[in-house]
Amino acid sequence: MMQDVDLAPGVGYIDGQYLPRAGIALPTTDVGFKLCDMCYDAIHVWRGRFFRLEDHLDRFARSIAKRRFNFPFSRDEVRAILTECVRRSGLRDSMTMLIATRGDMLGPGFDLRRCTSRYIAWADPYYAVISEAQAREGVPVAISRVPRVPPDSVDPTVKNFARIDFADALYDAYEQGCEHALLLDREGNVTEGRGWNVFAVFGGTVVTPDSGVLEGITRKTVLELCARGNLEPRVAVLPGGDIARADEVFMASTAGGLMPVSRIDGTPIGSGAPGPVTRRLTDLYWELHEDPAYTTEVVY
Amino acid sequence: MMQDVDLAPGVGYIDGQYLPRAGIALPTTDVGFKLCDMCYDAIHVWRGRFFRLEDHLDRFARSIAKRRFNFPFSRDEVRAILTECVRRSGLRDSMTMLIATRGDMLGPGFDLRRCTSRYIAWADPYYAVISEAQAREGVPVAISRVPRVPPDSVDPTVKNFARIDFADALYDAYEQGCEHALLLDREGNVTEGRGWNVFAVFGGTVVTPDSGVLEGITRKTVLELCARGNLEPRVAVLPGGDIARADEVFMASTAGGLMPVSRIDGTPIGSGAPGPVTRRLTDLYWELHEDPAYTTEVVY
Repeated sequence: MMQDVDLAPGVGYIDGQYLPRAGIALPTTDVGFKLCDMCYDAIHVWRGRFFRLEDHLDRFARSIAKRRFNFPFSRDEVRAILTECVRRSGLRDSMTMLIATRGDMLGPGFDLRRCTSRYIAWADPYYAVISEAQAREGVPVAISRVPRVPPDSVDPTVKNFARIDFADALYDAYEQGCEHALLLDREGNVTEGRGWNVFAVFGGTVVTPDSGVLEGITRKTVLELCARGNLEPRVAVLPGGDIARADEVFMASTAGGLMPVSRIDGTPIGSGAPGPVTRRLTDLYWELHEDPAYTTEVVY
Repeated sequence: MMQDVDLAPGVGYIDGQYLPRAGIALPTTDVGFKLCDMCYDAIHVWRGRFFRLEDHLDRFARSIAKRRFNFPFSRDEVRAILTECVRRSGLRDSMTMLIATRGDMLGPGFDLRRCTSRYIAWADPYYAVISEAQAREGVPVAISRVPRVPPDSVDPTVKNFARIDFADALYDAYEQGCEHALLLDREGNVTEGRGWNVFAVFGGTVVTPDSGVLEGITRKTVLELCARGNLEPRVAVLPGGDIARADEVFMASTAGGLMPVSRIDGTPIGSGAPGPVTRRLTDLYWELHEDPAYTTEVVY
């Protein structure tokens, strides 16, 4: 079982104020509450440097545009407020969040176009989606019977919190003795887990699902790193029945980087231990964190 | 355009405290925030009496059970806290909310079964989903191109806030000059709108969709009232192509009761004005609010 994250050092921002992290709360007058009409991004700080900050800000801006929010903060303001959360927290390794909501609406049937977005940000101590033991040994994953919400109903490329399907999928996983669930789409193809993309390694080819998923920044990084690792990246349909036959499988998330999967529905993946491709890409991923082209220093 | 609701007289409850309504906010540490893992119910108070309070409490308890929340409040406590919100507000006509969340989880990948639910309640001034002018003249509705999230991904009988599909459907409606959107399922059959069920009247038959919808208390009330109105209630598949051919169409919601639809996608329904069946059922609905069998007095 994983440890709780101590939020005490965290700092957040809402409605013009910097507050202790645990004090950040969403007003129930916000349509973000009533319709889950929000989008977000998560960025990590490693050894005092943001990783791919501008890529995340690009995606956050795209999400806000796709949701057609009236978002009154400039990109520079978004970056400055987030950085200030990290600076005030003093955290050298941090998971940060940027959230844009639809904004307040008083009453039930009003015009969403009249709302003005709220911007919420925070910096927490860094954490991974899995435990340290699981990162060493690999993590068992269950394929859930709950189908992922389809992209034409809720666009998964806009990172959002409307994830009841993931909550139900986790219960499915618990019943199979797993803490993590992988969801299929309605055609039975692999999509993603709650907060992570998935990769399957077949020989020298590294496959990740092409649609119905968040276009993760860690996913993007892995695809780019394949060239350095002499591997062929492939963005394609990945049938649910194929994934357990892969030589290696790993999760990819800002919260943990690359994380090896040991079993799927009880079937060992390869040897059941983290494989060489996963290990090689993981090393390349963390090496990138020392490259100034990929990182932005926080001045504390 | 509708008026904003003045929340000033409202009173809410969270974490052991009664607060002014506008101060009720959801902690971002709650899985209700991170995965929208919440359920809710909405009950109205009319002339100092709750309408069908125990029916709503039954449904709220079913929702909590379906979501497998560890909910530490008894039914009597739920009722007492909600009633206290109304009493403190002094509101004789009120829309009240009961919300159960998954509860706090510190960290990203932790076991949902360890969480303890939070209970949030409030009493706002009464409001309807539509304006008074629309209640008199009928409201135009657009059928959205955004398909409703399917029931096997998110169960619509558990009243929930994961409604990004409704937000996108509303934008679709705005483009068609409407403030209200009706969503179809993936087979093209009618489901519901944001916060309301729909009924179509064909001669003496009153049809409402059988699945993929919230089993609304107003919907239940309408089905029961059909007998008194000499009408045949029918819970059945309602193809999206059929509804505009109905003699009458109306919305049903705790927030407004029965509300006449004047046009669907620009096509007038019947004469385009509220029809006799809608008017008759509306009268019966409001008469029920004086029946002690359906109402519970608030002692202010």
